[in-house]
Amino acid sequence: MLKLYVAPGTCALASHIALAETGAAYAIEKLSFKTNQQNSPEYLAINPKGRVPALVTEQGILTETPAMLAYIAQRFPQARLAPLDDIFAFAEVQSFTSYLCSTVHIAHAHKMRGYRWANEESSFADMKKKVPETMGACFALIEQKMLRAPWVMGEQYTICDPYLFTIAQWLEGDGVDINAFPKVADHFKRMSDRPAVQKALAELA
Amino acid sequence: MLKLYVAPGTCALASHIALAETGAAYAIEKLSFKTNQQNSPEYLAINPKGRVPALVTEQGILTETPAMLAYIAQRFPQARLAPLDDIFAFAEVQSFTSYLCSTVHIAHAHKMRGYRWANEESSFADMKKKVPETMGACFALIEQKMLRAPWVMGEQYTICDPYLFTIAQWLEGDGVDINAFPKVADHFKRMSDRPAVQKALAELA
Ligand SMILES: N[C@@H](CCC(=O)N[C@@H](CS)C(=O)NCC(=O)O)C(=O)O
Ligand SMILES: N[C@@H](CCC(=O)N[C@@H](CS)C(=O)NCC(=O)O)C(=O)O
Repeated sequence: MLKLYVAPGTCALASHIALAETGAAYAIEKLSFKTNQQNSPEYLAINPKGRVPALVTEQGILTETPAMLAYIAQRFPQARLAPLDDIFAFAEVQSFTSYLCSTVHIAHAHKMRGYRWANEESSFADMKKKVPETMGACFALIEQKMLRAPWVMGEQYTICDPYLFTIAQWLEGDGVDINAFPKVADHFKRMSDRPAVQKALAELA
Repeated sequence: MLKLYVAPGTCALASHIALAETGAAYAIEKLSFKTNQQNSPEYLAINPKGRVPALVTEQGILTETPAMLAYIAQRFPQARLAPLDDIFAFAEVQSFTSYLCSTVHIAHAHKMRGYRWANEESSFADMKKKVPETMGACFALIEQKMLRAPWVMGEQYTICDPYLFTIAQWLEGDGVDINAFPKVADHFKRMSDRPAVQKALAELA
């Protein structure tokens, strides 16, 4: 059985929802960031990066959200979470997950994790101040150029959707009004109604 | 025929080398960052993110290095650039490319692109100063936990290898001595000897 390491409020929710969508059995292991459990020796043995998510499989441990999402889609093909038979369409899915991971998640991380990239309190404050602008710009691009609606890839629900939902959850705390992006706001509502999303959120609580 | 938009010294080299490895015909379109061509209306119509690389295919345009690398591997399976028949091994490949994209490339980008995440000159200087430390920490993790040698995934050369080579090229300018990481340094030399790498670098010159 797959085991997923998560923490509340994090990007791990994307993989968590994707697992729930498959209908397969899985186990959730919740870390506490308050006690810095992600940097405990026990967890660093699982993920030396000291981050969630991590997915324990029978063949070994996987990290990095885009890789885990593609793995879940490929491992449970009957769940149809990615267009596995069309390499271009699959690449479009991967382009979207890579953008969320390398640009949008990173924009958000500058709010609380400025110490990763700088040393001075004044830099942290400066970074924090810019987050509404950078997150707003990312979501403007998603709204105008990426989200085909009703799902990210159009008619087919894919691994892109739980990942977008996960990051869109951060908008309010980042000082961005989701209603400035009608397609994103509609997507967020549509996602909130899915049983897999409600199951994952309940398992986190 | 595939067309790849590149610029010298950028992460586009990873996809460029991967294309050269396939033996397929491809075209290269070189942008000039000096004249900010990546933000020209013509190029923004190709990639609204204003970045390289972008790959023009018969079915549409792809962006994001990890997605493009996986696409190249899947489109040219005879080149054996990824373990396509083993979903766990493929996910390991993708985990590595995602880490380079979302963590290592981002650490490097704080040297020259601090304005993406902050507004003050003092913050840019602070970020720039930290790059040797963050890039050093990333490469220590790669050396100790990721690079199996001789190639990233062990005996099989994959899309991970041109991507690691591309980012390792930045180490000197980032103030990190590659020789502190013997496996990475050996990998870099081994890559430099490959005809596909020499072809790609010659096409950039
Ligand atoms: N590129 C990784 C990033 C993972 C990541 O940054 N996770 C955050 C939570 S959203 C974390 O574990 N942070 C803990 C820390 O920084 O100590 C992915 O997409 O999975
Ligand atoms: N996540 C993207 C990042 C692309 C990216 O940042 N490219 C840089 C060159 S390494 C760029 O085009 N920068 C131009 C600019 O910032 O104006 C990828 O991995 O392809």
